[in-house]
Amino acid sequence: MMETPSISPDRIWSRLMALGQDGALPGKGVNRQALSDEEILAWHRLIGWGREAGLTPATDAAGNLFLTLEGTSPQLPPVLAGSHIDSQPTGGLFDGAFGTLAALEAVTSIAEAGLRPERSITVVAWMNEEGSRFAPGMMGSELFAGKRTLGEVMAVTDASAISVGDALARVHQAFPQLERRPLGFPIHAYIEPHIEQADGLERAGAVIGVVSGIQGKKTFEMCIAGREAHAGTEPMGRRLDALQAFARVALRMQMETAFVDQAVKFTIGRIEVEPNAPSVVPAHVRFRIDLRHPDNAVLDRLGQRLEFILAEDAAPCAFSIRRLVDAPSNDFDPALRDAIRRSAARHGFPALDLLSAAGHDARQMAPLAPSAMIFIPCRGGISHHPDEWAEPAHVAAGTTVLLDLILEQSGLSSQQGDA
Amino acid sequence: MMETPSISPDRIWSRLMALGQDGALPGKGVNRQALSDEEILAWHRLIGWGREAGLTPATDAAGNLFLTLEGTSPQLPPVLAGSHIDSQPTGGLFDGAFGTLAALEAVTSIAEAGLRPERSITVVAWMNEEGSRFAPGMMGSELFAGKRTLGEVMAVTDASAISVGDALARVHQAFPQLERRPLGFPIHAYIEPHIEQADGLERAGAVIGVVSGIQGKKTFEMCIAGREAHAGTEPMGRRLDALQAFARVALRMQMETAFVDQAVKFTIGRIEVEPNAPSVVPAHVRFRIDLRHPDNAVLDRLGQRLEFILAEDAAPCAFSIRRLVDAPSNDFDPALRDAIRRSAARHGFPALDLLSAAGHDARQMAPLAPSAMIFIPCRGGISHHPDEWAEPAHVAAGTTVLLDLILEQSGLSSQQGDA
Repeated sequence: MMETPSISPDRIWSRLMALGQDGALPGKGVNRQALSDEEILAWHRLIGWGREAGLTPATDAAGNLFLTLEGTSPQLPPVLAGSHIDSQPTGGLFDGAFGTLAALEAVTSIAEAGLRPERSITVVAWMNEEGSRFAPGMMGSELFAGKRTLGEVMAVTDASAISVGDALARVHQAFPQLERRPLGFPIHAYIEPHIEQADGLERAGAVIGVVSGIQGKKTFEMCIAGREAHAGTEPMGRRLDALQAFARVALRMQMETAFVDQAVKFTIGRIEVEPNAPSVVPAHVRFRIDLRHPDNAVLDRLGQRLEFILAEDAAPCAFSIRRLVDAPSNDFDPALRDAIRRSAARHGFPALDLLSAAGHDARQMAPLAPSAMIFIPCRGGISHHPDEWAEPAHVAAGTTVLLDLILEQSGLSSQQGDA
Repeated sequence: MMETPSISPDRIWSRLMALGQDGALPGKGVNRQALSDEEILAWHRLIGWGREAGLTPATDAAGNLFLTLEGTSPQLPPVLAGSHIDSQPTGGLFDGAFGTLAALEAVTSIAEAGLRPERSITVVAWMNEEGSRFAPGMMGSELFAGKRTLGEVMAVTDASAISVGDALARVHQAFPQLERRPLGFPIHAYIEPHIEQADGLERAGAVIGVVSGIQGKKTFEMCIAGREAHAGTEPMGRRLDALQAFARVALRMQMETAFVDQAVKFTIGRIEVEPNAPSVVPAHVRFRIDLRHPDNAVLDRLGQRLEFILAEDAAPCAFSIRRLVDAPSNDFDPALRDAIRRSAARHGFPALDLLSAAGHDARQMAPLAPSAMIFIPCRGGISHHPDEWAEPAHVAAGTTVLLDLILEQSGLSSQQGDA
């Protein structure tokens, strides 16, 4: 067995803090939305750190960023690891950034140890995981996996009517020398470290989460169309008030779905009202529903229920529905999950098997190659919030386990048959 | 009795259509919000038309626009007539514009007839009646009447964080030669023509509305403060979802107030959600309530009820309330109402006494001097909408009645003792 490199806990921590400066909010937290100027700054940092370690940067037509340590057999499909670096408008320092920098740290430690893997190892930062500026999210990984078309994704616009295509062209113009890889390529395995975004690990006193799968998710865009009228004169009985219809619909959806069991998650996160003027009866309401459940049968039933409630309770207003995401629950690769458990045990990190309640880019990689996710705790389970926090020791632990898996998958260690 | 001038139905109609080009929406309707570039264009038109008739333009620190035909005794308080020219974001061609142009037409016909009134006659276009860009509305008339302070009003900002003070400075810079009058001056009488914005006249087959008063109005800005969280991971039972709290509150408010009787008007016209991202549990909701009722005791009771409902149903979220407008119902001057009735009868216009369900700048003038409003029908009662429409014959009828009242009040006719 050859010498094993080890990660630098200080370096990954200081890089997490440095990356948090790109889009830093006053006080704390970050606003580094997809394809923004802030994300361009973050690309500069990542590419710079990658070059220091001898990694080759590249991008693709989807706006994913790759940093590759070339293996001795570069014709073999690479080991892919990473996450994303875009954030919610009021996000934290760890969601996405941890997984991306953990992968960079693992590969950097391999390169610094002078090791040359058989397979190439590629760090990835997927384009627009969050979906807050351009909806829905997971654009980069879904394009990579062929689940959406470039034409469809590039036409999506943000609140300022800027398209993904135009925003991505600006990013690519900022890096004119960057190698352009074809969209989608064979991969040997995919591993994504991430903060848990819930408090299962914290409550169990565990440090490493062995993610069994990602809970199923459906998202809908629903519209209610009423009729604009003067707030001071239109009799109540003649109104078609789209916002009151929304309140009826939202409350009944909440009552009928949110308390089905402990596992369901029902959220209306975004609403747009027209004309949204104080003395005008609202004419149009457009809102987004995010529905999740680990049991695909329950998820399907609840999704149908939501559509039924809109149809019934929007009346006398008109309504429409767009199904934006319909992703069933999935299971991650058992062998990789075993490898995570073994690595955690070897280092003495308490581990816990759990389901990911949040969606991740790993969902898209799972059908393409053996895939896995390594979770670390985040304080109080708080995420998508400036208060999001992970302990330096947990960051180091997750990165250490990732390094073990990368060594094994890239042909640098013989741990695979160890157990 | 001296010769009586008469208005030009064609001229006021063509001016209504011309004014509708400033801020014209595609298709029909206008978006000419307070202190906008579109309103500057409208000021240019009004001032130009006024100068043609020999009227002197002026403004004040509140951004009101005045066009004055000087009387033979200019030291006497003038007769004031007019309305406003700002619109809702998707407004019509008549709300405000009709009253302003009717006053201009009446005064123009007096000037063209070569008549010189004893008292000066001033046409007014009040600043920001609608309150859609800068809330709440009625800013110009409330400042004129001393009901609000300049410091408070000038600090109000629009959705782009532009203040009233800055927007008004831009308007005033566009008219550097304009005479500046002191804010607030004695007036002899105030008369405001307006479309009804309801269908009482239309259903009764009446052409002239003799407005008895304006129904009372309260507006509130309410905030609900929850806690931002990840839509995929935060358990439902631990959420502080501000938008779900809003749905609960809005629905209960609607149920408890909107069906009290036929006269009540309850509207939530505006809502702002933060962070308003698809996969984030909403942390903050700020919304505007518009509550109206002609009976002040009922209005007070319902207002208290709304505050109680927020306090009770926002929980477990926190809440806050700002009372923006608290205007009781008022009665217009009986002698002026008689004069409207007499004029309508003399011209053969069917008249109807009615209450104004909508608020108007005349509310602020009523405590300062004898005040009245003349309503004309609008098709289907539709207002605050591009479909808003008034018949040319009704526009002419309302303007004719206004002319009679102005002649009487400015000392050009002896109709006062006629009845």
